[in-house]
Amino acid sequence: ELGRFMNDIGKVDPDYVRSFQFVNRLLPSTWIVIRIDGCNFHSFSEDHEFVKPNDEQALNLMNSCAVAVITEFQDVVFSYGVSDEYSFVLKKDSQFYQRRASDIVSVIVSFFTSTYVMKWKDFFPQKELKYTPSFDGRAVCYPSTQILQDYLTWRQVDCHINNQYNTCFWELVKSGKSKREAQKFLKGTQTLEKMELLKKFGINDYNSLPAMFLLGSSAFWDKEETSLLHENGASDGNCERKVIIEHCNIIEPDFWNAHPYILGGS
Amino acid sequence: ELGRFMNDIGKVDPDYVRSFQFVNRLLPSTWIVIRIDGCNFHSFSEDHEFVKPNDEQALNLMNSCAVAVITEFQDVVFSYGVSDEYSFVLKKDSQFYQRRASDIVSVIVSFFTSTYVMKWKDFFPQKELKYTPSFDGRAVCYPSTQILQDYLTWRQVDCHINNQYNTCFWELVKSGKSKREAQKFLKGTQTLEKMELLKKFGINDYNSLPAMFLLGSSAFWDKEETSLLHENGASDGNCERKVIIEHCNIIEPDFWNAHPYILGGS
Amino acid sequence: ELGRFMNDIGKVDPDYVRSFQFVNRLLPSTWIVIRIDGCNFHSFSEDHEFVKPNDEQALNLMNSCAVAVITEFQDVVFSYGVSDEYSFVLKKDSQFYQRRASDIVSVIVSFFTSTYVMKWKDFFPQKELKYTPSFDGRAVCYPSTQILQDYLTWRQVDCHINNQYNTCFWELVKSGKSKREAQKFLKGTQTLEKMELLKKFGINDYNSLPAMFLLGSSAFWDKEETSLLHENGASDGNCERKVIIEHCNIIEPDFWNAHPYILGGS
Amino acid sequence: ELGRFMNDIGKVDPDYVRSFQFVNRLLPSTWIVIRIDGCNFHSFSEDHEFVKPNDEQALNLMNSCAVAVITEFQDVVFSYGVSDEYSFVLKKDSQFYQRRASDIVSVIVSFFTSTYVMKWKDFFPQKELKYTPSFDGRAVCYPSTQILQDYLTWRQVDCHINNQYNTCFWELVKSGKSKREAQKFLKGTQTLEKMELLKKFGINDYNSLPAMFLLGSSAFWDKEETSLLHENGASDGNCERKVIIEHCNIIEPDFWNAHPYILGGS
Repeated sequence: ELGRFMNDIGKVDPDYVRSFQFVNRLLPSTWIVIRIDGCNFHSFSEDHEFVKPNDEQALNLMNSCAVAVITEFQDVVFSYGVSDEYSFVLKKDSQFYQRRASDIVSVIVSFFTSTYVMKWKDFFPQKELKYTPSFDGRAVCYPSTQILQDYLTWRQVDCHINNQYNTCFWELVKSGKSKREAQKFLKGTQTLEKMELLKKFGINDYNSLPAMFLLGSSAFWDKEETSLLHENGASDGNCERKVIIEHCNIIEPDFWNAHPYILGGS
Repeated sequence: ELGRFMNDIGKVDPDYVRSFQFVNRLLPSTWIVIRIDGCNFHSFSEDHEFVKPNDEQALNLMNSCAVAVITEFQDVVFSYGVSDEYSFVLKKDSQFYQRRASDIVSVIVSFFTSTYVMKWKDFFPQKELKYTPSFDGRAVCYPSTQILQDYLTWRQVDCHINNQYNTCFWELVKSGKSKREAQKFLKGTQTLEKMELLKKFGINDYNSLPAMFLLGSSAFWDKEETSLLHENGASDGNCERKVIIEHCNIIEPDFWNAHPYILGGS
Repeated sequence: ELGRFMNDIGKVDPDYVRSFQFVNRLLPSTWIVIRIDGCNFHSFSEDHEFVKPNDEQALNLMNSCAVAVITEFQDVVFSYGVSDEYSFVLKKDSQFYQRRASDIVSVIVSFFTSTYVMKWKDFFPQKELKYTPSFDGRAVCYPSTQILQDYLTWRQVDCHINNQYNTCFWELVKSGKSKREAQKFLKGTQTLEKMELLKKFGINDYNSLPAMFLLGSSAFWDKEETSLLHENGASDGNCERKVIIEHCNIIEPDFWNAHPYILGGS
Repeated sequence: ELGRFMNDIGKVDPDYVRSFQFVNRLLPSTWIVIRIDGCNFHSFSEDHEFVKPNDEQALNLMNSCAVAVITEFQDVVFSYGVSDEYSFVLKKDSQFYQRRASDIVSVIVSFFTSTYVMKWKDFFPQKELKYTPSFDGRAVCYPSTQILQDYLTWRQVDCHINNQYNTCFWELVKSGKSKREAQKFLKGTQTLEKMELLKKFGINDYNSLPAMFLLGSSAFWDKEETSLLHENGASDGNCERKVIIEHCNIIEPDFWNAHPYILGGS
């Protein structure tokens, strides 16, 4: 058979086949956000018995993967995650993969997924990973820092709205209502009504819930890249940076003022 | 802090933030090929001591992941892999993720990666996975079956050319040459010269090497979806399909004639 | 001032500025349709007192522009027009402008517009062109001849539906109804009701209206590129081709069977 | 024939045909530049005997078309032209055609072309327009005002470089050299050498050439939209704006400081 194969070489023109490829290059000098979402994580969280409405270990695992992404891909300057989604911000002038959307999205999703599987046992030593988790992803460009911050605000507001709803929902379910009944019960309720409801279930101060549940998680380098200055005045060029995770308000300017290097770098 | 947060809700208009999203929809009624490649697998294969030029177990692991992809995503009708790359063909009329390139690429890359990590220990029981493997990916559309087959031909020809080169290269290295010397030695050599060289190293018949090395791997459903016909003539609607792996010439029409259902389905 | 200008040369890096350009290349080996539409032709036709519902001279002018486009751009193999729209089909393997959508669309729209203005006086010797007409345009790819024909069918069906409606509408207006009343009257009426209505206005056989109104206009080369064969058997390489306009059914296969060279060329 | 046609209606699904359409929406909140270029204007200018290296009337016609574009399309805030090219800047938050690249490019190119043909006789009363001129066009997004200004700088620098070259080239040709000889002569010459050359031809001060040739043309609204304030303090809401053309340095900040409303509006 291979004899015939030898004759087959040269049968096609690689340039012609390659001409069907297309590139989707992201506009230069814009912030790139890669947002990844768990696929079918509704089922995945049930099948792996995640605590509802928030499983602390599952969130810690997500955060740990985000830290790995930031550590691995140096152009990622900030990330924000909630539930089974995570957004990664690449610096404006990033030339990662020459800004080809498909490559950037796929490699970040791939690395995140890989890390999720490898670290699973660290966060769930008692639970077997029953099947393959997967994530999908997409890239969006934001032409100004203001609009990038609007994006992050949007995600954090969504975190709050979803968490408040889910906290009520699962309290209702724990109290004996079916999921359908709980859903119906909550339909159209406003914030104040939800707060009242939670009080009935003993959650007198919604704001006293863990900050990670209320505000999501931000992962970023804790300080700017610096070289150590020795007593003798010599710098050894080493860095003492590490990626940290905080659960804080990223809508108000305070956070960004306190960490000017995050978005100021480019 | 959260009190202030409450005031922040409604600060941004989600529709405005969302307006920056874009979709890259793949042209309808064209074959979609998702091609994934290992990132830095040169280092990865060294760090995990893969046998050179071909590590049978590493290839088996790749093939096993491809089988998982085909089994999971029903629109994938064929796949072809060699070394650390794999191409997945989606049927022409696939509506998977409404043909959004970013979603399709990312979820297939994610699932493949996830499976790679989970199955690692099955194929390398003695080797620890030292760090996170990752893959990148891209989508290409081919408007006709002929051009799709040209694409697959191109990949299989590349497989052959690379394998012949690599086989020579590693024989030279095993014989004491440095990698740089081996590279220099092979520069500009033609097929016949390489065949002669291999004979000197005892490989008298290059074509007798394992078919997986020579021809790569094709993974696909072994027969069309069928319902079982019982003795009493009743069909129970069950399928007995499974995904198989073959190492065969996919350039010549014989393969496609023998499996008309693969590309004939849509 | 210019002295300072001299210092400004070299202030910007052309490659950086150019990096913001993007190309939108149309998928190879697919039929390209460039469809152009008149901008604000509702007003334009009123301001230039076009006969309603169909102005024969205005349609002849459109057709004349289409003939010019086909004659100028050799990759255009067929065109179909109705009212103030025209669709131009480029052959599958066209390399015009390396298949860059923006260039192809803009140059065809520009040439069509230019011709429209230049030929205006030939078709409306008594009417002054009061202001600048303009057209917009877009490109679509069709991966198979069947789907391309489906596109053309769609346009011709639209032509019929619109013409039937407009014929009724303007008969009602001529009979004294306001435009609003005419619109209300026709809302929801079916084909048979419209036919009955037209009979009341003396149009006993709708199908006897001019074919150009009923079926739109197709412009194309009247025969394949051929070299003349002289009596002595020598070919002089000249072509006697010209672009013709027909008003015929392009939905049924008859037309395409009678002109196999139109879509068969590539 | 039409009888059969009636049966053809409903043969295709418009939604399916439409699904092949794609939109290329330009990133929100970025400056849009539509740049148009004359097609084959090398021949066009020869066939219409344009004065070389610069035909004042041809440039005035181009400028007049640019003024028409700015007057017609209110989102165009600035334009810059040289030779047979013109760049139109749309404001950052423009929603013109929902920012669909193809529509915006095609309608501006179409309107420009249409105006060019209609105004030809105003600028060349003695010259017949021998054939149809056409232009092609493309859209580029610039995410910041700085980069937009870099783009305009690039174009003005190009204007200078080309004009200096062309002035030398045509002086050499007028002096008896063939075009090929003139080209060869100029190859590799620097600015100073070109200046010296021009002095030999009596152009002692290159900078004394008309500003339109040296600096190109900028067309824009001469002042911000304002309402008139009457003596009695009442505003009548009328505007007294008009589009003006200047030939000035747009690289230095002076111009932009003197016209802050041009790019400051959005």
